[in-house]
Amino acid sequence: MTERELRKKIRQAVEAARKECPLVPSITNTVTINLVANAQLACGGSAAMVYLPDEGEAISSICQAFYINMGTLFPVYAETLPRTIRALADAGKPWVLDPVGIGLGSLRTELLRQMKAMPPAIVRGNASEIIALANLWGLDTGVAKDGVRGVDATDSVDSAVMAARALARFIHGAVAVSGAVDVVTDGDVVVRSYGGSPLFTKVTGSGCSLGGVCAVYAAVTDPFAAAITAVNMYNAAGKRAEKEARGPGSFEKIFLDTMYNLSADDVASNAMDACKA
Amino acid sequence: MTERELRKKIRQAVEAARKECPLVPSITNTVTINLVANAQLACGGSAAMVYLPDEGEAISSICQAFYINMGTLFPVYAETLPRTIRALADAGKPWVLDPVGIGLGSLRTELLRQMKAMPPAIVRGNASEIIALANLWGLDTGVAKDGVRGVDATDSVDSAVMAARALARFIHGAVAVSGAVDVVTDGDVVVRSYGGSPLFTKVTGSGCSLGGVCAVYAAVTDPFAAAITAVNMYNAAGKRAEKEARGPGSFEKIFLDTMYNLSADDVASNAMDACKA
Amino acid sequence: MTERELRKKIRQAVEAARKECPLVPSITNTVTINLVANAQLACGGSAAMVYLPDEGEAISSICQAFYINMGTLFPVYAETLPRTIRALADAGKPWVLDPVGIGLGSLRTELLRQMKAMPPAIVRGNASEIIALANLWGLDTGVAKDGVRGVDATDSVDSAVMAARALARFIHGAVAVSGAVDVVTDGDVVVRSYGGSPLFTKVTGSGCSLGGVCAVYAAVTDPFAAAITAVNMYNAAGKRAEKEARGPGSFEKIFLDTMYNLSADDVASNAMDACKA
Repeated sequence: MTERELRKKIRQAVEAARKECPLVPSITNTVTINLVANAQLACGGSAAMVYLPDEGEAISSICQAFYINMGTLFPVYAETLPRTIRALADAGKPWVLDPVGIGLGSLRTELLRQMKAMPPAIVRGNASEIIALANLWGLDTGVAKDGVRGVDATDSVDSAVMAARALARFIHGAVAVSGAVDVVTDGDVVVRSYGGSPLFTKVTGSGCSLGGVCAVYAAVTDPFAAAITAVNMYNAAGKRAEKEARGPGSFEKIFLDTMYNLSADDVASNAMDACKA
Repeated sequence: MTERELRKKIRQAVEAARKECPLVPSITNTVTINLVANAQLACGGSAAMVYLPDEGEAISSICQAFYINMGTLFPVYAETLPRTIRALADAGKPWVLDPVGIGLGSLRTELLRQMKAMPPAIVRGNASEIIALANLWGLDTGVAKDGVRGVDATDSVDSAVMAARALARFIHGAVAVSGAVDVVTDGDVVVRSYGGSPLFTKVTGSGCSLGGVCAVYAAVTDPFAAAITAVNMYNAAGKRAEKEARGPGSFEKIFLDTMYNLSADDVASNAMDACKA
Repeated sequence: MTERELRKKIRQAVEAARKECPLVPSITNTVTINLVANAQLACGGSAAMVYLPDEGEAISSICQAFYINMGTLFPVYAETLPRTIRALADAGKPWVLDPVGIGLGSLRTELLRQMKAMPPAIVRGNASEIIALANLWGLDTGVAKDGVRGVDATDSVDSAVMAARALARFIHGAVAVSGAVDVVTDGDVVVRSYGGSPLFTKVTGSGCSLGGVCAVYAAVTDPFAAAITAVNMYNAAGKRAEKEARGPGSFEKIFLDTMYNLSADDVASNAMDACKA
């Protein structure tokens, strides 16, 4: 795929999400659930969040894609997540995994371990989370790490490229690693996307909502193009929002406004480069 | 009731909520719970949210009205909702039902079915939800429909008028149907309220928070006047907020500011018309 | 401690939180969980929220301080809170208690009663909550009160000073009472802090997020200085934010921006006075 083709795919994905308004439900954490929904709406998706097993199954059969975020697990997730993931697999629907908090608690570890057998189309995380997930699944990462400190990365994006490529190859999908410069890979090509803002680290749910937006685009294009589209949307909108923002409070709202208003060309022309690793 | 009397009731309700600061607890979904509370505060109410059965019972005895929203059910709701609704009935407190997600999952269907025996004073929903609830309760709606796609309406408000009137007559209360033009009915009179903004559809919880505000006004006036007051508040504030907003992020905040600042006359003079159906 | 020394401690705490970015997890209510996290980020902390027992234990061992807010209890809290509090005690980590809703429901009462044996370093609440907690623990408060109406105070801050002092002495820590004028005491010295804004009462989670910010500062200084720093931060930032705000929607965002931007000197020079009671 040439760069020109890639940028064309991004433009098409931005437009398709706005036109088709795909239903993209989530099982996601209570901290950032509102921002996830609002970010999905801002880029054209229809959001719906559930907790119960049969609701996860039922909505899997009518949705176009799904988002699973591992923050703030409840006891019922022990049943909801496996049943929902099986329903998604049976229905052939793509889903995005955000392995927030990997390494913390036995339920999270057990659920993430199980997902190896029925993997997502896209994994979105910070560098530490991507390395930890690849290690949990026994992939070759070059870095020893099996958990994270809280929800913030302690590793650089560059140190996670090997883990991201291994993960992407394993899931036959795409992996997006968030950081000062973002990396998206399908296991072969490694794309670096530029822009964004340090203020993203001061707004809770920047990463979670990026995962939710990856799922919106996964409803209208292939996993690799979906992840690249979402990451470029965040970098283009974040960079513009920062110019007007006076702090994290205004940044969050201006960012949503900007995401809603950006043209497909604005997103498709965001600074990025690609290489075969 | 003449139009003049109706507008007087709206003015009084807006003022009474601000003066009396009624306690209006909610059992509501985690996606939009923050906006529900902030919208209730902005129009003068005191908000409090609970999940546990005995908390629902205890707060029912000291509140002035209650809001129940069926989004994001937890397992404990199987016990919390029936016990809370019984406590509200025993105490003679009005409550507002928002049947979000009707048709999705067995618990939601079972709980909504049970409510027929101890119904709310007001039902607030989009057209698809209102039709589905009236059908679930075996009322005459003229439309075959027993569930919805996600949380967004796929039916027009006009197509739900017959269901709304049947529901309102059955509950001896009021039904508010949200859409581009909003309809409120007591089963006899059908009021259409104008204004608002398409940006409401890009802010998660616009509808949920309208339900919460209906409950605030239900604490200070009769159900029909309460629903009309809330709907006109949203339409008047939404129309003004849209003029300044640059997208859904800023719209939400300007809307809350506007709701807080609107005079009772601004709300009472919002464009609406009424007819006997 | 002289006033000069106190103001120096405040300055140091503001700077230390920004520099060290301490991990300060929470078990907190779903209504205001997003604002708690964003307020903690705005003043330099790293936020992480959990619900499950073993997650509370695990994160207690790697955090610098912890925040427990009693709003919106879930059934699993019956196990999560005791185990987390024991883990915090074993690890010698300071934690902040916000007894929201005290008096409502049997689980909340039972959990709060248990905490007497393993108390927090700081209690943050409104006047009614502080009086009710001190009474629940059998301390001498001068006021008969064992519960509150919803989540809003019905007592004046002054009427809670005796209860606050008794509580602070009992826990060998600090108590912050929120109101038009805020009081912070270590049981001996009583500090009054001025500023803030009436708009705080129109934004859900103003109090909850203050508790979360107390916990951030408890990670970098002693409990009394931590509570005073947080309260002065809120009063200084709230006062400035009010000048630009047009209502509660814009106030919340400007407040976060201001908290992020205030200098340590701005916080340390906020109006306050102290006396031995």
